[in-house]
Amino acid sequence: MTKTELTDLYRGYIACLNRQDWPNLGQFVAGDAIHNGRRLGLSGYIAMLERDFSEIPDLYFNVLMLVCDPPYVACRLGFECTPTGRFLGLDVNGRRLSFGENVIYEFRGGKISEVWSVLDKVAIEVQLAGGR
Amino acid sequence: MTKTELTDLYRGYIACLNRQDWPNLGQFVAGDAIHNGRRLGLSGYIAMLERDFSEIPDLYFNVLMLVCDPPYVACRLGFECTPTGRFLGLDVNGRRLSFGENVIYEFRGGKISEVWSVLDKVAIEVQLAGGR
Repeated sequence: MTKTELTDLYRGYIACLNRQDWPNLGQFVAGDAIHNGRRLGLSGYIAMLERDFSEIPDLYFNVLMLVCDPPYVACRLGFECTPTGRFLGLDVNGRRLSFGENVIYEFRGGKISEVWSVLDKVAIEVQLAGGR
Repeated sequence: MTKTELTDLYRGYIACLNRQDWPNLGQFVAGDAIHNGRRLGLSGYIAMLERDFSEIPDLYFNVLMLVCDPPYVACRLGFECTPTGRFLGLDVNGRRLSFGENVIYEFRGGKISEVWSVLDKVAIEVQLAGGR
């Protein structure tokens, strides 16, 4: 897959997430996908996302930076959202947060086979403590 | 700069960190470098690293994954190390930790001009709580 094709595919994946279009997620995520070392498979991957949207009703994935080197995509995602209760073990309780996620994806056969994701929990803690 | 050249340059930067070779860090880091939104400059960047090595005497940067798309490099770094006291606001106190960092670099004029780094604090918390 060329860099342009993979970039387009990745943006299609993000659009699918933002539509919460779970019936079509299998176009982008492999049936045996691994997320942060856990073999979730497609159904587990969807369950994870459904939980995310349940905890954060206004969740929206913004692609801030995209680094494409087939078969890998690295991305900085930005979030401006409002978790309703606890999030990452923190009592957010409806405060509006702004934070990033740095995530690397490996694609195989045109689908995401493995994901290494790190959310910027430290940035959230600073905001909850009253900092910027 | 080609992908191969940028990859080699980045690996040279990591080797420089692991040698704690601060007099030569200016070969890799711009004089006005920004790290997670803060304009540290070269001197502030070195001060940050000196503090890291002071808090974590056995700090060593392992490149686990490298995604190169000039002028950007994205990397998953792995750490197996022993912070002596507090680290990221957590009482580590000499426990051995294993965690990752997902980091994206922008290069300008052959040097790192901006860095977006996220350490996997959640993985550290799991280990301190007695999990894997």
